[in-house]
Amino acid sequence: MATISKPDNPESNPRVKAVFDDIRATRGSDFINNIWRYLAFDPPLLEQMWQEVKDVMATPSELDPLTKEMIYIAVSVANSCTYCTHSHTASAKAKGMTDAQHADLMRVITAAAKTNHLVTSMQVPVDPEFDTDA
Amino acid sequence: MATISKPDNPESNPRVKAVFDDIRATRGSDFINNIWRYLAFDPPLLEQMWQEVKDVMATPSELDPLTKEMIYIAVSVANSCTYCTHSHTASAKAKGMTDAQHADLMRVITAAAKTNHLVTSMQVPVDPEFDTDA
Amino acid sequence: MATISKPDNPESNPRVKAVFDDIRATRGSDFINNIWRYLAFDPPLLEQMWQEVKDVMATPSELDPLTKEMIYIAVSVANSCTYCTHSHTASAKAKGMTDAQHADLMRVITAAAKTNHLVTSMQVPVDPEFDTDA
Amino acid sequence: MATISKPDNPESNPRVKAVFDDIRATRGSDFINNIWRYLAFDPPLLEQMWQEVKDVMATPSELDPLTKEMIYIAVSVANSCTYCTHSHTASAKAKGMTDAQHADLMRVITAAAKTNHLVTSMQVPVDPEFDTDA
Amino acid sequence: MATISKPDNPESNPRVKAVFDDIRATRGSDFINNIWRYLAFDPPLLEQMWQEVKDVMATPSELDPLTKEMIYIAVSVANSCTYCTHSHTASAKAKGMTDAQHADLMRVITAAAKTNHLVTSMQVPVDPEFDTDA
Amino acid sequence: MATISKPDNPESNPRVKAVFDDIRATRGSDFINNIWRYLAFDPPLLEQMWQEVKDVMATPSELDPLTKEMIYIAVSVANSCTYCTHSHTASAKAKGMTDAQHADLMRVITAAAKTNHLVTSMQVPVDPEFDTDA
Repeated sequence: MATISKPDNPESNPRVKAVFDDIRATRGSDFINNIWRYLAFDPPLLEQMWQEVKDVMATPSELDPLTKEMIYIAVSVANSCTYCTHSHTASAKAKGMTDAQHADLMRVITAAAKTNHLVTSMQVPVDPEFDTDA
Repeated sequence: MATISKPDNPESNPRVKAVFDDIRATRGSDFINNIWRYLAFDPPLLEQMWQEVKDVMATPSELDPLTKEMIYIAVSVANSCTYCTHSHTASAKAKGMTDAQHADLMRVITAAAKTNHLVTSMQVPVDPEFDTDA
Repeated sequence: MATISKPDNPESNPRVKAVFDDIRATRGSDFINNIWRYLAFDPPLLEQMWQEVKDVMATPSELDPLTKEMIYIAVSVANSCTYCTHSHTASAKAKGMTDAQHADLMRVITAAAKTNHLVTSMQVPVDPEFDTDA
Repeated sequence: MATISKPDNPESNPRVKAVFDDIRATRGSDFINNIWRYLAFDPPLLEQMWQEVKDVMATPSELDPLTKEMIYIAVSVANSCTYCTHSHTASAKAKGMTDAQHADLMRVITAAAKTNHLVTSMQVPVDPEFDTDA
Repeated sequence: MATISKPDNPESNPRVKAVFDDIRATRGSDFINNIWRYLAFDPPLLEQMWQEVKDVMATPSELDPLTKEMIYIAVSVANSCTYCTHSHTASAKAKGMTDAQHADLMRVITAAAKTNHLVTSMQVPVDPEFDTDA
Repeated sequence: MATISKPDNPESNPRVKAVFDDIRATRGSDFINNIWRYLAFDPPLLEQMWQEVKDVMATPSELDPLTKEMIYIAVSVANSCTYCTHSHTASAKAKGMTDAQHADLMRVITAAAKTNHLVTSMQVPVDPEFDTDA
């Protein structure tokens, strides 16, 4: 159940087909997951989002691909995004995340959440030693 | 400005002193940052929190120390925790995070936040292919 | 599946019936959606919530009705409220929101979420020029 | 106090200068606010963020500029982003938002937040009537 | 620093004066804290908000006043509201919250935050036994 | 549907069995809810989480058990945690929470959420009178 209608034959639109083809080529898989199938309702938005996700997540950069997936999961969990937590956990596993690493990821996420709430409860002032911009 | 009173001479309490000594030994530094100085108002809470942070962040585990700091930052940003964002960015830099890696971390955090909000707007249903528990 | 029991015959309670009648009259529709059917478990809470939603959303004010629905959606998405995102997207469409406006709304929501997380990552200080209260 | 160092002479970098010039031209003002001054630490990130903000907020689209600013404020408030709330309230006022409209915006934001939390407390199931994707 | 201008002589407006007088009478104190001083920019919004806070927090109800303050703090911390965390911690202390209770409150808030993030990471399905609405 | 695989015979692992036995003994019930059944995928994480929840929620402390459950619900609602809202509402009811108290809890949660968003919109400065740490 969604707030928009998923197009029935999205690839009849050449802009959508071009994005879907690039998703398949980038991932080496025929599977197109729902976020892209729904975004096809607005081809310019689909193009922009895929370009950004591809640039950030599928292009070699300073951080390795699995680290990026785990950071993505951490944000998605803190933002309570069910779909994103599912899709990026699947991506992380596809990139080699083991069950033990998954458990460790949860240890870090939950320790951070715990101290986030503790510090906000206490309203701890930031130490001047942390000021990078001095 | 905080919601609790920071004890004046925290190390006059031997339980607090033991924790502060362990913080110094674990980090190889004399600097005790404010979260621990404020937590000294309740020694059992101080002990429990330091033990957890030490176990998760300062003990060798499945993920390397810098990766754990970046995951911690990601959660802290998504939870809008100013103190935690400052303290763990400082920790990440102390563990070698470069400016280029910091920028890359921000790219991943912001791409995740963007798609989190997009997917929630559209209420995209989770693909059955993502079900690990099948 | 809910945390409270939806009353079976809510309109047997005259206070509930009065609210449901006002909902139908205000909207020109017989459809009573679930939030009101569940809230009927506590008639004073039902009365207070409907009065507030009616005052804010269904009474002419400084902002036009469709703009108010889109602001409502934006808050609901950022707060990860599935029900509210669905119900107010339906309301916005009933008030004329086109698919192109819906896509534009998502562009603004996601750009805001992205910069929110970026600025929190960087802890950018507020420019003194923004101080209205000077 | 920030987590990154603001460059001292950002416009000595031609990529930064080009973005700052475009910000000034787009806005018809010499004022460059802090988000861009700090982002200058990583010119590619600065370019990408400015391009996106310009495309979404400063380019004619389906929604009028003031409506977009109010939606931006709504998301920023729900995400607890101090800087963004300040900067986009200033932008909204520059585009003509009156005090009465500002108060009305707060009425909608707070009514949404209230019902978001109410509905999550009750875990109200989504009405099948809201399914656009049927 | 605020996004609105605090009126200089708020009580020159009789509607504002009536609310301020009621705040003083309800609390038995001459102190009017900033939220009300700023809200005076829009007297109807001031009246509505004070009425609601008075009804919920200062009127005898099913829960005792200190319990209500602690619940209020819990929500404010989870929503990262600095002002609300400060003001309601002060209210809780004025109603007798001890340092030991404050520490216990933090234990509950942080345990909840931790399991919230854990459960979202794992996407644990809700047990059918929890369904009240069956 | 979850991001991890629930073990088929969790109690064949003696560490898991020991935790499950302690859950049953602590609660005086044979019912083991899903969070523990899923956490069994990583016995050390299961042990740590159960120990913390037991220490905080099932051990006599400064706050009574029902108050702690309501604070837990408040945090879980603000963090949009569906599972936690369900499980701790069930716990609160098992500890005697009436429908009228439940409605009152919702009044406090929603009033807090409303003022949280209002204060963040206005960026109200914290009154110096609230400074405990002066």
